[in-house]
Amino acid sequence: MAKVLTGKEVVSQLSDELKERSEILERRGGSPTLAVVRLGERPDDLAYERGLTKRAEKTGVTVRKCVFPEDLSQEDLLREVDVLNHDSTVHGILIFRPLPAGIDDDAVRAALAPEKDVDGITDLSQAGLYTGSGVGFAPCTAEACIKLLKHYKIPMEGKRAVVIGRSQVIGKPVSMLLLAQNATVTICHSRTQNLAQVCREADLIIAAAGHPGTVTAACLRPGQTVVDVAMNVGADGKLCGDVDYEAAGKVAGAVTPVPGGVGTVTSGVLMLHVVTAAEREASRSMLR
Amino acid sequence: MAKVLTGKEVVSQLSDELKERSEILERRGGSPTLAVVRLGERPDDLAYERGLTKRAEKTGVTVRKCVFPEDLSQEDLLREVDVLNHDSTVHGILIFRPLPAGIDDDAVRAALAPEKDVDGITDLSQAGLYTGSGVGFAPCTAEACIKLLKHYKIPMEGKRAVVIGRSQVIGKPVSMLLLAQNATVTICHSRTQNLAQVCREADLIIAAAGHPGTVTAACLRPGQTVVDVAMNVGADGKLCGDVDYEAAGKVAGAVTPVPGGVGTVTSGVLMLHVVTAAEREASRSMLR
Repeated sequence: MAKVLTGKEVVSQLSDELKERSEILERRGGSPTLAVVRLGERPDDLAYERGLTKRAEKTGVTVRKCVFPEDLSQEDLLREVDVLNHDSTVHGILIFRPLPAGIDDDAVRAALAPEKDVDGITDLSQAGLYTGSGVGFAPCTAEACIKLLKHYKIPMEGKRAVVIGRSQVIGKPVSMLLLAQNATVTICHSRTQNLAQVCREADLIIAAAGHPGTVTAACLRPGQTVVDVAMNVGADGKLCGDVDYEAAGKVAGAVTPVPGGVGTVTSGVLMLHVVTAAEREASRSMLR
Repeated sequence: MAKVLTGKEVVSQLSDELKERSEILERRGGSPTLAVVRLGERPDDLAYERGLTKRAEKTGVTVRKCVFPEDLSQEDLLREVDVLNHDSTVHGILIFRPLPAGIDDDAVRAALAPEKDVDGITDLSQAGLYTGSGVGFAPCTAEACIKLLKHYKIPMEGKRAVVIGRSQVIGKPVSMLLLAQNATVTICHSRTQNLAQVCREADLIIAAAGHPGTVTAACLRPGQTVVDVAMNVGADGKLCGDVDYEAAGKVAGAVTPVPGGVGTVTSGVLMLHVVTAAEREASRSMLR
């Protein structure tokens, strides 16, 4: 039976650590603050916001809600982002996306100050991840995979990692993060031939294809660690990942559940980025 | 016996094509122009410059030599780069590196206009390659590998490619380019375990480790294509690649020689970038 790598225990330990770091920042003059920028009242956004707010409370992060009508013009949105970029009491900015139709996502991403880009959406954050320059932050879900693996002491150095999916949000950034951990990384995608064989060679599978049933029993061998990043709605209407969880439970060495795995860690990583951004700002202001 | 994939035939065809494109640009008012920025008289730089100048002649590209004393200050160098950035008759800028001690490479890279960055050294070019946004250009040697494979009609889509090396100049960018060709890409490096086994799984090996003897007979199987990107000086003082060329010649399906393989194509790709930059500038000026 595979060990179940739950996110709860990871995020709980991370939250305790962040709470301490937030308290130190608060004593030095300012609580780490995340501005969330929301246009309209989409149920998905509201649910995400509630989750974030809870996690923020547990980590000592202040959430500043910046809510605008759904029909806010692009010009006005860019102006609001600019105000937040220049507000020294705001350390991280999270813009709920997808943005309403008519707003150019690229223009909004480009407007965001990279040092406050706590979800790694700007080109410079992405370049930082690719070049290892350390500018900006990684996308939270990608980094949550690494946090989870480290928490459970799953070795990565020199191991073979297979990443399924090549999106800018998960597949590519998690590949770059695994490479930085000295894993030998194989990036698979929809055009990959013999996916099952490629997966069986891996010590570590990161499934981020976004299709239920991508990782079948044929992909698995004993001893593997299987991280399921996807959040799909299955044929039965229930939330499910990319991995045949029952098969993985029988065959693999360890597996993350969906829900309750990587997704649970993601909001904790977002808070980690806010606290880190606040610490960096505090060091800079000491030098000034 | 493996087929020998020489660079000469690739660069010759590319040059003919570029010559035509350059002539069209010239008739429309301006020859595609590459500014080369050289500090001092390092023999390596001079040899590279001679090679470039020859290739430029064959492709209809004008080379403007911007030569400065070795002790030029960083401030003055940045000012010269700025002048070239704003000079509409210059389409590409190549700065010979490594720069003399005392000059901050990062500052110089950051000063370069991404649209003239024909060797893909700026953060925005790198981000463009990683995100697929198409901003800037890929590093020339990385793109030369793809040009060579396409010329010889080596299939990449769905094939397993193993890249040895994870540098920003070759390993990572060639991995991104192979991914864009829909290959399944494995990135190996100094911490990879069982390199020989990983290599034997590949249809295509790109060796860019920079160590002679990295790809031994044990890494090879019949039918593979082996691209050797490295330029090492062997124990005998002769130029050699990463691949045991004799073994590859016997076992593999196709192999690139060193010298005379990828390196030969690189200067052609640089000229391709200059001509492309000039064409983009010409389209922009038509819109103005």
